[in-house]
Amino acid sequence: MSVNFIKCNSMLITGSSRGLGLQMVKHLVSICERPKKIIASARNPSSAQELQQIARSHPEVYIVPLDVVDDASIDAAVKQVSSIVGPEGLNCLINNAGIMTTSDLNTETRDRMMNTFQTNTVSPLFVTKAFLPLLRAAASVCDGGVMSVNRAAVINMSSLLGSVQLNCGEAANFKVYAYRVSKAGLNMLTRCLAMDLQADGILCTMLHPGWVQTDMGGKQAPLTPEESISSLLAVISALSEKDHGQFLDYEGKNLPW
Amino acid sequence: MSVNFIKCNSMLITGSSRGLGLQMVKHLVSICERPKKIIASARNPSSAQELQQIARSHPEVYIVPLDVVDDASIDAAVKQVSSIVGPEGLNCLINNAGIMTTSDLNTETRDRMMNTFQTNTVSPLFVTKAFLPLLRAAASVCDGGVMSVNRAAVINMSSLLGSVQLNCGEAANFKVYAYRVSKAGLNMLTRCLAMDLQADGILCTMLHPGWVQTDMGGKQAPLTPEESISSLLAVISALSEKDHGQFLDYEGKNLPW
Repeated sequence: MSVNFIKCNSMLITGSSRGLGLQMVKHLVSICERPKKIIASARNPSSAQELQQIARSHPEVYIVPLDVVDDASIDAAVKQVSSIVGPEGLNCLINNAGIMTTSDLNTETRDRMMNTFQTNTVSPLFVTKAFLPLLRAAASVCDGGVMSVNRAAVINMSSLLGSVQLNCGEAANFKVYAYRVSKAGLNMLTRCLAMDLQADGILCTMLHPGWVQTDMGGKQAPLTPEESISSLLAVISALSEKDHGQFLDYEGKNLPW
Repeated sequence: MSVNFIKCNSMLITGSSRGLGLQMVKHLVSICERPKKIIASARNPSSAQELQQIARSHPEVYIVPLDVVDDASIDAAVKQVSSIVGPEGLNCLINNAGIMTTSDLNTETRDRMMNTFQTNTVSPLFVTKAFLPLLRAAASVCDGGVMSVNRAAVINMSSLLGSVQLNCGEAANFKVYAYRVSKAGLNMLTRCLAMDLQADGILCTMLHPGWVQTDMGGKQAPLTPEESISSLLAVISALSEKDHGQFLDYEGKNLPW
């Protein structure tokens, strides 16, 4: 699957300095009808060399500093994004920033559990809350319209490893307690948001990008970042009301909780 | 449903000073063939008047101080429980201690999310890890036996509110972000434990006690603590291999994730 157009005005991707976030920005600037404003946030933009290079040759890419665990940083990012998108608001927020460390029953620590939960689960809630006025503005511009990323959407990057049901058999060999728990929690959080933001017409969906050759996924992963993101953006562009509060993989298939 | 016997040697219930934990201790001392050693832990035993009263008239009830978020307190509790149960080990650990505060999209805070996760999700992992040598000792005493609470088991008190699938329609009106996310995380954690402790013969199951008239559940709840715990102990006494890694309600019905 690949995508030829995402017709929204603006899209914000957190954690864009590397991995899937960076690949998403790379892919977006390559497609024909792309978002007019592609906002790429990173904790330390000054060290995001590749992202800066893309922004230099693509005026539609805006780099915004955002540390998702820091509320002051979130507030500053909202102000900056607000001035970028203007009264049309923000159409699509992709909560992509996340961390993973491997840890089994013997090696897991409270600190790692807490830190992973803070970044992967709690932060998407507070980033989303902070950007809600901009998302609501975008939703109301096409009030009465159908749900889609072209109107207003929160996309949370989850993982198959967050599926409780699929944590059995061979799949259970991935011993990543902190990560699995944080993503199962993120799925619940996304479902809560879906229930609460339905009246605003803001689509909320969680996605599994596949097992991808990134720093996080490792070299043995079956998918390249290009393959994952090409397919994932096609899924994102086609999201509709039936996907609200649902958990889909990079091929658009529904996953069990 | 009610239960007439739970034939294990020892059972530890965390958070026994009030609510469902206290009711469990009350019910256990009333049944005919009960665990020989009922270990009731509480954060502040000195203020647990009702629990102390039960222990005074029931020598099989041992009160142990345990603050589940404090690793030093956990270590001290393991030493005390070890001397109570001796070489037979601990048959059943019931991770019941938990907190809930109501909080919707507007009122939720990072601190509340983190604290609820620490108590409800992270602590059951570290309490379980600390008691593993005692649980493994109990499992090996009847090595080759079938899985049951009479051999060795970890029971995590979850909630229907932790089911992502059931968070829709009218049920979604319970706006408790921090609690829902912590219990969805606990379900994943229990599933991870189930995969890792299967080889030891330690049964791991998560249970929903129903919506109960406690400080946590409120007065409008449909079940009394007696009704919930009577039924829940019957379910616990009958748990077997088929329930390993599963999510059951107080009537023994499987719940979706």
